[in-house]
Amino acid sequence: MNGWKERIGQWMEEHREEGVRLLRDMVQMPSKQGDEAPIQQLTARKLAEIGLKVDVWEPDGRQLQQHPYFYATRTDFTGSPNVVGVRKGTGGGRSILLNGHVDVVPEGDRRQWDDDPYSGKVENGRMFGRGVTDMKGGNVSLILALQAIDSLGIRLRGDVIFQSVVEEESGGAGTLAAVLRGYKADVALIPEPTKLHIFPKQQGSMWFRISVAGRSAHGGTRYEGVSAIEKSLLIVNHILALEKRRNNRITDPLYRNTPIPIPINIGVIQGGNWPSSVADLVKLEGRMGVAPDETMEAAQAEMAEWLDRLGQEDPWFALHPPVLEWFGARWLPGSVDPEHEFMLVLIEQFGSVTNQSPIIKASPWGTDGGTLTHAGGIPAIVFGPGVTEAAHFPNEYIELDQVFAAARIITLSVMAWCGVEE
Amino acid sequence: MNGWKERIGQWMEEHREEGVRLLRDMVQMPSKQGDEAPIQQLTARKLAEIGLKVDVWEPDGRQLQQHPYFYATRTDFTGSPNVVGVRKGTGGGRSILLNGHVDVVPEGDRRQWDDDPYSGKVENGRMFGRGVTDMKGGNVSLILALQAIDSLGIRLRGDVIFQSVVEEESGGAGTLAAVLRGYKADVALIPEPTKLHIFPKQQGSMWFRISVAGRSAHGGTRYEGVSAIEKSLLIVNHILALEKRRNNRITDPLYRNTPIPIPINIGVIQGGNWPSSVADLVKLEGRMGVAPDETMEAAQAEMAEWLDRLGQEDPWFALHPPVLEWFGARWLPGSVDPEHEFMLVLIEQFGSVTNQSPIIKASPWGTDGGTLTHAGGIPAIVFGPGVTEAAHFPNEYIELDQVFAAARIITLSVMAWCGVEE
Repeated sequence: MNGWKERIGQWMEEHREEGVRLLRDMVQMPSKQGDEAPIQQLTARKLAEIGLKVDVWEPDGRQLQQHPYFYATRTDFTGSPNVVGVRKGTGGGRSILLNGHVDVVPEGDRRQWDDDPYSGKVENGRMFGRGVTDMKGGNVSLILALQAIDSLGIRLRGDVIFQSVVEEESGGAGTLAAVLRGYKADVALIPEPTKLHIFPKQQGSMWFRISVAGRSAHGGTRYEGVSAIEKSLLIVNHILALEKRRNNRITDPLYRNTPIPIPINIGVIQGGNWPSSVADLVKLEGRMGVAPDETMEAAQAEMAEWLDRLGQEDPWFALHPPVLEWFGARWLPGSVDPEHEFMLVLIEQFGSVTNQSPIIKASPWGTDGGTLTHAGGIPAIVFGPGVTEAAHFPNEYIELDQVFAAARIITLSVMAWCGVEE
Repeated sequence: MNGWKERIGQWMEEHREEGVRLLRDMVQMPSKQGDEAPIQQLTARKLAEIGLKVDVWEPDGRQLQQHPYFYATRTDFTGSPNVVGVRKGTGGGRSILLNGHVDVVPEGDRRQWDDDPYSGKVENGRMFGRGVTDMKGGNVSLILALQAIDSLGIRLRGDVIFQSVVEEESGGAGTLAAVLRGYKADVALIPEPTKLHIFPKQQGSMWFRISVAGRSAHGGTRYEGVSAIEKSLLIVNHILALEKRRNNRITDPLYRNTPIPIPINIGVIQGGNWPSSVADLVKLEGRMGVAPDETMEAAQAEMAEWLDRLGQEDPWFALHPPVLEWFGARWLPGSVDPEHEFMLVLIEQFGSVTNQSPIIKASPWGTDGGTLTHAGGIPAIVFGPGVTEAAHFPNEYIELDQVFAAARIITLSVMAWCGVEE
């Protein structure tokens, strides 16, 4: 493999401009939910150019709805195609699945962006734009790896399957559809923005809503009512206590440096409708982290049971129990043995390219890796360019150097995993 | 006066049906802000019929804006006329101002009403509809009193001025306009729904908004952010402590049986916009009660100073102090000496009609009495039919018997106060 390292490094240098252009083109396509078709057409064209057999299809909402891991905000995927490209191996090697999503979260308040959110502008080695780190940069790393393999005439023994999916930001229905279409492999790599850290484990998550009842009254005689706002404070504190309890159980050394491995975030509060009335309803919405080795069902049951205890703390809750709902997006947790053979491959190739040891952690967020593992039985590891601190925020950016470093490491890892016909 | 009590009682019996019809007609006019013209035309016609000199005009927003006690959600009162009717006395008596508002708060969620909110339906001695207790019932008591005086040929010595005003529900600009037009008297009576209790003192109130800053982050790494929701909980508790402190100072025996004489109600909470993001802004909106003998300015200063202390409790607040605004409607507090001569008159006539002693309290809400006192120098007492528990709520109602009892007591009190030419 030693000779390859240099040749691949050189190839990446020579194709830097082309890679940056591809990433810019992709960023300039605002592929929010429902608008993924243009970037998927570009991806399909590119994959065909570099020798992959390409499959483009719109997920079938009716079929998906039958599946226990279908979580989505819609059931009609018209105009939102998945793309899969397959490079068959010569035989006798292990297969790998490379998975990246093309959907991006909305740009939000445009006034908070220094430039157009879809500019793809480059400044000081960084490209800016919605989706550039989450995760079009990672997708370009994958495409560069596949192009280098093709262009350098490398004959892999195992199959490589590239899934360019929709719907990751809304619960993973795109990846689920690809698994149900039969695209599987011995291992999966997802280049979500890990800052080139390696994540064998991923936190799952799901959204909840808690409705807290009060009793209305005029503000001037507020003692005649019961404030749902004051009651909701008790619930926020109760949830914080649950978070503490759940995190005290986490002993996995991968979480050693994580202040709260599986947070419960209450992100939205909304209640009352008149300053001088006592609020009779408050809604809390949040995200519950799920441990890599935990099931969604167990986490849900623990939350429900915990809320049930409120009745003992405050008789109001015994008569008016808070109502818990699970709604919106969810991501399954994922977990791969840190000694898995592809982990060893990735660690070795990371060291070979960077002359450093990689940082190995558990991810603080879910990815489509959970779906690949739970629905497809495919161990999934997350490793990619970019930083999550930039994801979902104004002025999202990626360090371009990381895109090319990831591409080099991924190329060599795919070769080492799949085997190369000399 | 003894003969009069019976004659007036009998007159009210004979005119019960007519009074109920008038109240029903008024309730069937949905006189929400901006839609007060029809009911004011009806009122003006009625006042003219019973011998008052009538003045109808639209308040001048430009003039009102110059006044320090102008609080309103609008400055254009086109289509929202005030009506004043004057019955000049024969001379040598004390004058009285009778004040009632015709504006009603919106009906809210119609599904919570058993009937059309503007039905004016009568059932078991109660009339139902938005505004029937707040305060069209009181207005009808006033009109019945004026009609009885006219119809029975009672020649009062002092002047009677009836102000039928707009804008009470939005800060009192209608009454302020009537005062600025020169309509004043030696004392004022406002028949807001007191359940026939007598309120020589009224709580003032004003609305505030507190903006609480946080720092956004992804919910999966929520420890990288600062939750404005958690910070807002500290502020709610801090405000509760201020409420306690302010109420501990109240020693007025009129508040003996009031759990919280001057409440601070936080009625609205709103913050965050994504379940899996850390909320970076929460807004709290509420109503601060102002003691009858306190100024609005002193209460505002106390709240501001109290919030300033948060920086000592939590360094976050030192760097990101909560932002306090005063917005929307406000009502000035009011206070009359419980030994004021009109108090004695009202107590005596209440006893004469009901054979009971009246309950004397301080009101838990503001009325236009504060404006009459502070802007017009007119002592104001609140006494009227209906219950505030029904005001502003679905299925608002009034006990019709109370409307006529109030009318009898008010007729006799006006006579005793103004004096009667035998």
